[in-house]
Amino acid sequence: MQKSKETNEYIEEVAGNGLLHRRAFLKAGAAAAGSATFMSATAAPPEVDPWTQIPGRPPEEYGNRSPFEADVKRLAGSQPPALGAGSSRTPLGDLEGIITPGALHFERHHNGIPAIDPSEHRLLIHGLVDRPLIFDLDTLSRYPLVSRIHFVECSGNSGALNAPQAAQASAQALHGLLSCSEWTGVPLSVLLDEAGVQAEGKWVLAEGADSALMSRSVPMSKILDDALIAIYQNGERLRPGNGYPMRLLLPGWEGNMNVKWLRRLKVTEGPTMTKDETSKYTDLLRDGTAEIFTFPLGVKSVITSPSGEQSMQGPGLYQISGLAWTGAGRIRRVEVSADGGRTWAEAELTGPVLDKALTRFRLPWRWNGGPAVLQSRAIDESGAVQPTREALMSQIGPQRRYHYHAIQSWQVGANGEVHNVYA
Amino acid sequence: MQKSKETNEYIEEVAGNGLLHRRAFLKAGAAAAGSATFMSATAAPPEVDPWTQIPGRPPEEYGNRSPFEADVKRLAGSQPPALGAGSSRTPLGDLEGIITPGALHFERHHNGIPAIDPSEHRLLIHGLVDRPLIFDLDTLSRYPLVSRIHFVECSGNSGALNAPQAAQASAQALHGLLSCSEWTGVPLSVLLDEAGVQAEGKWVLAEGADSALMSRSVPMSKILDDALIAIYQNGERLRPGNGYPMRLLLPGWEGNMNVKWLRRLKVTEGPTMTKDETSKYTDLLRDGTAEIFTFPLGVKSVITSPSGEQSMQGPGLYQISGLAWTGAGRIRRVEVSADGGRTWAEAELTGPVLDKALTRFRLPWRWNGGPAVLQSRAIDESGAVQPTREALMSQIGPQRRYHYHAIQSWQVGANGEVHNVYA
Repeated sequence: MQKSKETNEYIEEVAGNGLLHRRAFLKAGAAAAGSATFMSATAAPPEVDPWTQIPGRPPEEYGNRSPFEADVKRLAGSQPPALGAGSSRTPLGDLEGIITPGALHFERHHNGIPAIDPSEHRLLIHGLVDRPLIFDLDTLSRYPLVSRIHFVECSGNSGALNAPQAAQASAQALHGLLSCSEWTGVPLSVLLDEAGVQAEGKWVLAEGADSALMSRSVPMSKILDDALIAIYQNGERLRPGNGYPMRLLLPGWEGNMNVKWLRRLKVTEGPTMTKDETSKYTDLLRDGTAEIFTFPLGVKSVITSPSGEQSMQGPGLYQISGLAWTGAGRIRRVEVSADGGRTWAEAELTGPVLDKALTRFRLPWRWNGGPAVLQSRAIDESGAVQPTREALMSQIGPQRRYHYHAIQSWQVGANGEVHNVYA
Repeated sequence: MQKSKETNEYIEEVAGNGLLHRRAFLKAGAAAAGSATFMSATAAPPEVDPWTQIPGRPPEEYGNRSPFEADVKRLAGSQPPALGAGSSRTPLGDLEGIITPGALHFERHHNGIPAIDPSEHRLLIHGLVDRPLIFDLDTLSRYPLVSRIHFVECSGNSGALNAPQAAQASAQALHGLLSCSEWTGVPLSVLLDEAGVQAEGKWVLAEGADSALMSRSVPMSKILDDALIAIYQNGERLRPGNGYPMRLLLPGWEGNMNVKWLRRLKVTEGPTMTKDETSKYTDLLRDGTAEIFTFPLGVKSVITSPSGEQSMQGPGLYQISGLAWTGAGRIRRVEVSADGGRTWAEAELTGPVLDKALTRFRLPWRWNGGPAVLQSRAIDESGAVQPTREALMSQIGPQRRYHYHAIQSWQVGANGEVHNVYA
């Protein structure tokens, strides 16, 4: 398999500005072409490692990260005037794979994180039902559980990209209201079956136990389709910032509707038109009318490495890595461009491809040291294609605040710095 | 769908002592039979929740669990005489789903957890290769990454069940040297392709940078099949107890071979016969000979709820929940018995079913308050069936210490207490 650089089929460009075949380095023999190494293997040989000379520390009951990883943290900020209101953003540029550790899952709070004693918490199901039901956590935990890996995304995620000038910001700052966990919970269809939904019950009001009493209306069809009362996140009980001890999970629908600290589900005839769905989460259109109730999130992707505020380590081989997701189900395909959308290459989906979950894509890239604009474009199983920023902005007016899902452009400068641009 | 208890097909027993159809409560109408509710919905209605009356706390940069969850922790113990040696066991009875949070992933150390500065750590690939290579973490991170969800199990897991008397212990104490994460890393085939393995190179020696210099020999076929140098665990960098900054991952093979703090891979002609593979991880057979190099782990399962040292809350409906896994690939089927193996019902696989990953199974059970012996039996895609304890013990002698994978029996007493028994 010793092929020269010129003849090695695996490391030929498949799209402009250095994009290589998605499986170039997963096939035997590719690297043997010599020039196709990702590094020059000339680092100094290891000294005797000092940590091999002394015994390490014993195991602990609850583990911690390495102190060398302390800079990997959420970008947390408050949003006055409501006390405790704010958000924390997942450090997408520092993570890999699709699972978000609980400590780094994004949060958005309207009145802070309540300190709930789970033994005192109750969930009430009432309204247009034959048998109102009240659950405590122990009781709910005996019900049939299912486990599924799903993303949650705030509908305000990426909203900074509505601004007329491209902000200099990281993937975390721009897109970090996005995370993915394995959620375990009770299908809401089971609970409503037990309560007995009356014929006129077509919507459900979901209310949280925070001091904002965050409330949203959900169509019954979604509730009976795949909604969960989630009580575990990545194996352990929910984190307080994600609704401990129970939250509504509406896979693929805007984050705000996945009501945390869930205390009440009321079956109703129509939407309740709560403060949280009339004053917010509505898109103002060009003609001055408003688009209300945009529930499933659009097909979307973002390159996380390299991404804004990162720096390249000099010309050579890299792996472009990013995330794709859609409220419509599974990601079918992701394409990557290194020349601002002129030519595209298909990325490899190098991890599990699951329904309404983050999907990791990757593609090898030989950066020649010159300027480049990196983009990714996701296509989902419904056939929907992630739009360009231009297309999205022409459809919705500049006052838009929610549901931004256009193609992200990262400009790689000749100095190796990576910046957010509109391209 | 209003059916009486007598006629509701979904809640009829499908095996002895109360086992119900695996989808009984996931079908509409089952619960409407009234007697089929998991609880009596008669808890007092909620007072005004005190946490709705005051603003909560703002978001943090790195989140924590609820203080009400502090009892969910690893069972950690030291194993003299080597300093720092010991293990910590995952609290299987408290977790749900398949992902193990990093802080609760099991560990087994032979000389403690080294405090490695990642900027000083190097991985050397040498021996029977054309081009010896040295990698630091930054360089390795530029290589093609893949992400996969895999279990890791210590080959000594469940070893207490070799004892002639059944120990009174929890699922954690008996089976907690078992965890599952999303691992992201570089396929070792890519790195060895670059190094250029010579024709006589058929094995690889893997050595860790702990003060035990833990070392194992791995056949080249496994290395080129699906071995990874893992550098991320559940999205974030590896935890120190799991090999930070890099470990060998051999999906489905005994945990000890997944060498942590990996510092050296040496391509060799045959196995090196290190201290760690000759003095340990070998099974003494009845005829006095030893079975060495049992690499893939056998098909196995355990019910985690209800399980040892847990208590039932009184007669009624429950959901049996457990984990199944196999070194051979995917779990095909799990069966559950409530009468000590006399009759069996098929459980539902209620989460992702992935290659060499933990697989969650669940089955509804109506406990009548009488004695019961719960068992689970896994069958994998190779057709292998988890053996009874009797069958396993007759095959391997009582001196056996490793690779125990027989059916676990949990006895539910009339008082609701759950105990480990040999049945």
